[in-house]
Amino acid sequence: MLIVGELINASRKPIAEAIEAQNAEAIKNIAKEQWEAGAHYIDVNAGIFVEKEADYLQWLVKKVQEVVDLPCCIDSPNPKAIEKALEVHRGIAMINSVSLEKGRFEAVASLVAGSDLKVVALCMSDEGMPETAVERVKIADKLINKLVNKGVLIDNIYVDPLVQPVATNHNFGVEFLSAVEQIMNNFPGVHTICGMSNISYGLPVRKILNRTFAIMAVAKGLDSLIINPLDRELVAYLIAAETLSGRDSYCMNYLKAYREKKLNL
Amino acid sequence: MLIVGELINASRKPIAEAIEAQNAEAIKNIAKEQWEAGAHYIDVNAGIFVEKEADYLQWLVKKVQEVVDLPCCIDSPNPKAIEKALEVHRGIAMINSVSLEKGRFEAVASLVAGSDLKVVALCMSDEGMPETAVERVKIADKLINKLVNKGVLIDNIYVDPLVQPVATNHNFGVEFLSAVEQIMNNFPGVHTICGMSNISYGLPVRKILNRTFAIMAVAKGLDSLIINPLDRELVAYLIAAETLSGRDSYCMNYLKAYREKKLNL
Repeated sequence: MLIVGELINASRKPIAEAIEAQNAEAIKNIAKEQWEAGAHYIDVNAGIFVEKEADYLQWLVKKVQEVVDLPCCIDSPNPKAIEKALEVHRGIAMINSVSLEKGRFEAVASLVAGSDLKVVALCMSDEGMPETAVERVKIADKLINKLVNKGVLIDNIYVDPLVQPVATNHNFGVEFLSAVEQIMNNFPGVHTICGMSNISYGLPVRKILNRTFAIMAVAKGLDSLIINPLDRELVAYLIAAETLSGRDSYCMNYLKAYREKKLNL
Repeated sequence: MLIVGELINASRKPIAEAIEAQNAEAIKNIAKEQWEAGAHYIDVNAGIFVEKEADYLQWLVKKVQEVVDLPCCIDSPNPKAIEKALEVHRGIAMINSVSLEKGRFEAVASLVAGSDLKVVALCMSDEGMPETAVERVKIADKLINKLVNKGVLIDNIYVDPLVQPVATNHNFGVEFLSAVEQIMNNFPGVHTICGMSNISYGLPVRKILNRTFAIMAVAKGLDSLIINPLDRELVAYLIAAETLSGRDSYCMNYLKAYREKKLNL
């Protein structure tokens, strides 16, 4: 299970404040905490600062990589900002994201083409956000084919089928899960990834829905997640879900987590 | 989600003691607790008392139904004991279980044939316990067909694909889950049911594995579970899993559980 730590996102107020104040310590601490909790990528997002997004994104990459030996997930639809962040990035970054929307596809895909970069491919097109599994799989098919034609390895593609709130339509959970299953079955070698929290939008006790949905998505084949890795309970359940998915020989990973006290809830 | 409360089972020491001492209050209390926690059936099992199983099973049914307005899940492979329990049972019981083992199939299936009884059909044959999804689906196919030929409605059949410990073989989780999915897809109208706790046998922090596996099985289509309904956390996650499976119009059930404080963990 590949985990992207989601916390360094300017849509969160303390992060926006830390970025504006250029408070490097605050950013470094959150990067370190996520690393220690087991994140494989640190998401960096400065999207709310329209004018200064590129500069701030570059600054975030620098500060994060001063303290953790991890690649970043560069979270922006803006090719200029992505390029500026990549100038200083060490290792192989993940770009979040390309989509089928016309301007966005060409701009971001050409950055990724011919590189080793990993790329999140959002199931979004000019016709808007898909609602059914069928619509999602159709967009995923086009995205994967277009990226592969540009020379992107299928192993570097992370399809995000887009989670939508179950409070809006009680089938939104099951349509997403079915899309994950079909994408993983139809395109061997591709990855699926998503953030969880939209699923519970508008409902109480959101963490129960988010954790449950993450486990259900893993059962359907999802192999990457954009989450808060400091949610110990979520991480423990994800370790168990991996073990129960046949991805943990001799339960070695589960037993290691136990010894490291990651299963103490 | 149909929930069978598993606690009144003589393999648990306090239950064995209560049965031997004919301590009706102890049995009644546990029945009531499970009912209040949302169980739809109360499992009764006196299997360790070989000679007295039939008498004890009948006594358990009587005591349980003196305090709760629920049917029992009569948990025995012994047709004599099942018959004796049915003599006093009010409402429509579930029989746990028939299997493809020769003696057991005929004896239990003929009790169920032509009745409204619900029946758990264990994926077990004379060749032993199946290990792969393919083997499980093959046995399920035979069991369902034989039961339907005897006049049992498909809606009254609860196939138990049999959970085996992931510590024994790291594919046992995924083989079980895949069997659930195939059985639910191949036999519309049939139900799937299981107990969870075998999955975590031999591993630490078993409740994490059990809860995670239950959620994963629901994601694959499982619609009935034999569990400890007093595990509030498990029940909360199962309510969420139902909502996320498209089985909860307008999230009414989730919101009701919230108002009833069932989601306070």
